[in-house]
Amino acid sequence: MSADVLPLADAAIPAALHDARDGLRPAMEAAVARLDDATSAIVSYHLGWTRIDGVPVERGGGKSLRPALAMLSARAAGAPADIGIPGAVAVELVHNFSLVHDDLMDGDTRRRHRPAVWTVWGAEGAILTGDALLALAQEVLLDCASPHRADAARLLAETTRHLVRGQVQDLAFERRAEVGLAECRDMVAGKTGALLSASAAIGAVLAGAPPAIVDALSRFGAQLGMAFQLVDDLLGIWGDPAATGKPVFSDLRAHKRTLPVTYAVTHGGPAGQELAGWLATPADRTGNGSGDDEAALRRAAGLVEKAGGRRWATAEARRRVGAAEDALAAAGMPDGPRAELAALARFVATREV
Amino acid sequence: MSADVLPLADAAIPAALHDARDGLRPAMEAAVARLDDATSAIVSYHLGWTRIDGVPVERGGGKSLRPALAMLSARAAGAPADIGIPGAVAVELVHNFSLVHDDLMDGDTRRRHRPAVWTVWGAEGAILTGDALLALAQEVLLDCASPHRADAARLLAETTRHLVRGQVQDLAFERRAEVGLAECRDMVAGKTGALLSASAAIGAVLAGAPPAIVDALSRFGAQLGMAFQLVDDLLGIWGDPAATGKPVFSDLRAHKRTLPVTYAVTHGGPAGQELAGWLATPADRTGNGSGDDEAALRRAAGLVEKAGGRRWATAEARRRVGAAEDALAAAGMPDGPRAELAALARFVATREV
Repeated sequence: MSADVLPLADAAIPAALHDARDGLRPAMEAAVARLDDATSAIVSYHLGWTRIDGVPVERGGGKSLRPALAMLSARAAGAPADIGIPGAVAVELVHNFSLVHDDLMDGDTRRRHRPAVWTVWGAEGAILTGDALLALAQEVLLDCASPHRADAARLLAETTRHLVRGQVQDLAFERRAEVGLAECRDMVAGKTGALLSASAAIGAVLAGAPPAIVDALSRFGAQLGMAFQLVDDLLGIWGDPAATGKPVFSDLRAHKRTLPVTYAVTHGGPAGQELAGWLATPADRTGNGSGDDEAALRRAAGLVEKAGGRRWATAEARRRVGAAEDALAAAGMPDGPRAELAALARFVATREV
Repeated sequence: MSADVLPLADAAIPAALHDARDGLRPAMEAAVARLDDATSAIVSYHLGWTRIDGVPVERGGGKSLRPALAMLSARAAGAPADIGIPGAVAVELVHNFSLVHDDLMDGDTRRRHRPAVWTVWGAEGAILTGDALLALAQEVLLDCASPHRADAARLLAETTRHLVRGQVQDLAFERRAEVGLAECRDMVAGKTGALLSASAAIGAVLAGAPPAIVDALSRFGAQLGMAFQLVDDLLGIWGDPAATGKPVFSDLRAHKRTLPVTYAVTHGGPAGQELAGWLATPADRTGNGSGDDEAALRRAAGLVEKAGGRRWATAEARRRVGAAEDALAAAGMPDGPRAELAALARFVATREV
């Protein structure tokens, strides 16, 4: 997901994303400072704080969705946003653990418009940095003063297990001829939905909110996660490379079984069948120019569209945002945070990067 | 470390290792059952419960040191051994997380006399399995009923950070011309000592023991860890391949900067200097027969011995076991568990596998 860091200057960006950035950076820096020097240097680069040579980047990083959710989550439980900060740091660290390991496994050479960690520090560097980030996430959470920190840490551990399960499924799909829409959804629920769900719930957990609030936030986050991935998948085919930081048609180039592609194959009639045939041909998983040429990728994108994959994914993303808002409506939470969470969900579903 | 699983039938084996095996297996199976099917299958193989094809192994696994420590740790705090079980499972899972990732990074093809996970399921399988084991360790611990579970989970997270730091140092040493004895000790304190220290303390933490007891157990485990690694390093050079499951001279073949080698180079006069010269030549890190021939390895082993590395490591291991026992003596803990911990330490320092 290249779109996990949202752009810095845009009038339409919800205030929660601004608030999250200001509150998060010192806490993130304090967390990363616990790591050994070599790992800390890699993490600082990965997070956009420094260049490869360690020189600080003037205005690095971005506004991150998961921390914003964690802090809004505390407010949705009637607590100050600060209560959510250890949760915000923890979900951001787990997210980055998964990015560092996934880039290595997927062979993705670019991340946030820069070389991915494994291309600079090798497989060893990427593996150990990811491991350190995962352990650090738990340590930060368990060091906080909330009497509910064990519940929050348990949620994070379970979430990580689902995250891994989603990646296991995703990689298995690459080796399979046929993938159903239900199992593709299940994969996305693990790979993207679980951590967004945990992000939306963890602040409330730290605040000691009643189960009804935690549950509503958790369901909100899971629906948001599905919407997020649908939009990500659409951008992976039709997004502007200059904005997303990915090569044009990047997901198609790797013959990825994304949601719109899987819908097109399974519900798209003759165009879907033609697409399935093309997917069965060898893909270029290195991004180095072997495999399909530009014309073939353009034709494949046309098939996804013709088979209804683009229209379905766009409508489904909108539907998921509606379901996310509905989840919030049921629980008794303050109007302000609820409105901000809803605005965040709508922003995610309409973003172009 | 091939020696992490101790042999099954030996009159000299301390009773604590027997007790640990019986108490641990059901809890380990319940933990592993939480994983997705694909990951669970890999873990079951790695733990020696099944063959590569999934068929159960009649009498698989062994008696593990870390779980035995965790359960004795609870008893040292005056609690039943059962209180330590979630801690025992957690440290065993973290240990296996590190084995699966380290084997991949070190290019070690064998583990416990069988093919290492990455040689069967690839880098992806090893990375994801390790990630899942690490998350599962925290989940199991945070699911237990102890009111002190957050403290135990915090200890485990911090320990994992030290574990990663130790591996970062170990890999960095391979790329360096000179490694000092102090930094080599520091690497071992992270890579081996931290988890044995946590294993020895975690049961007492779960039992809500006073800080003096936890601290004594923690220091006991750290000293034991150093003794364990010294013996492991000696076995890596002079151990019987049939017993250790490693190729003969395996550590020398990889030109590893182990403790006896580092002592020999830094304190061993002319023989140490000759050894340093040989270490600077290219090593065979694949174990596939390139690099040094048998005669060269035998000569290197002779240099380590001549330079005093074998004698020093043997004496140092004995000294560390003494220091471990001293750590226990200071704290007010029941005689029974203290004697069993001491017996375990002596067993570790005299083992031949």
